[in-house]
Amino acid sequence: MLSRERVQQLCKKSLESIPLGLKDEEWQNGIDFYKYMFTNHPDLRVYFKGAENYTAEDVQKSERFKKQGTRILLAQFICANTYSDPVAFEAFARETTDRHRIYKMDPALWHAFWTVFVNYLCTKTTVDEETKQAWAQLGKDFGDECLAHLKRTGRAY
Amino acid sequence: MLSRERVQQLCKKSLESIPLGLKDEEWQNGIDFYKYMFTNHPDLRVYFKGAENYTAEDVQKSERFKKQGTRILLAQFICANTYSDPVAFEAFARETTDRHRIYKMDPALWHAFWTVFVNYLCTKTTVDEETKQAWAQLGKDFGDECLAHLKRTGRAY
Repeated sequence: MLSRERVQQLCKKSLESIPLGLKDEEWQNGIDFYKYMFTNHPDLRVYFKGAENYTAEDVQKSERFKKQGTRILLAQFICANTYSDPVAFEAFARETTDRHRIYKMDPALWHAFWTVFVNYLCTKTTVDEETKQAWAQLGKDFGDECLAHLKRTGRAY
Repeated sequence: MLSRERVQQLCKKSLESIPLGLKDEEWQNGIDFYKYMFTNHPDLRVYFKGAENYTAEDVQKSERFKKQGTRILLAQFICANTYSDPVAFEAFARETTDRHRIYKMDPALWHAFWTVFVNYLCTKTTVDEETKQAWAQLGKDFGDECLAHLKRTGRAY
């Protein structure tokens, strides 16, 4: 078990390999996330209406996934930056769960996501064992709060 | 000019007076924000369809503003927690601007908001001058990025 501060430090450090911004190579980080996910977890495409059959090349050309890519990575930046502040971190988990309500996601994905994310991160930088442990700890806490929130609000279908 | 770390420290400290959570008194922090805003800036109610004539008492009884209150305070928690990480802070500002696109807000509000917020905070705790300066600095940077983003995307109407 790492301290929250150590988790934060390690996660933030690893995110330096995928900066968000307005340069082409920064947008590309987000696009690459979905290219990775759609290639390695094609079953997850079912949650992206209209893109159920998208290939990595389709993602590359898509304005939708350019924006969505940065948006999903931003959530990881927010998680890492708030992890040392559980009030903010857990409120963000609940809010994220609420915003995904309409997609009727399999609740297990709130935990499973983080393995996909770290595997994507490994395509961008070297992720050492302690950093993997940090993301796993953060991801477990995030998923736990999401599932508790689903249960609390009668959505643990 | 305060360092980003000092701004973060002061802003986070002041947010301890308005925790977010599932207890009644935690939800109340968010409700109180809208009660404060609707009472002191009734002109801003125009952006809340269906609530244009809401009084503080209407807000108090509203499920919508209970949720919306925590949601808007969460954004301040995220701003404070990311301020020492400009990549994340500025990406959050752009994302927030995009999510508000449909409301056709007066762009000036991206800066003006922070005075309203700090005045609300003053109803909850003692906010010293340095902390006010910290929020003003954070708010200016946030608003600057929002306006740059609006301009960049042809929305600086």
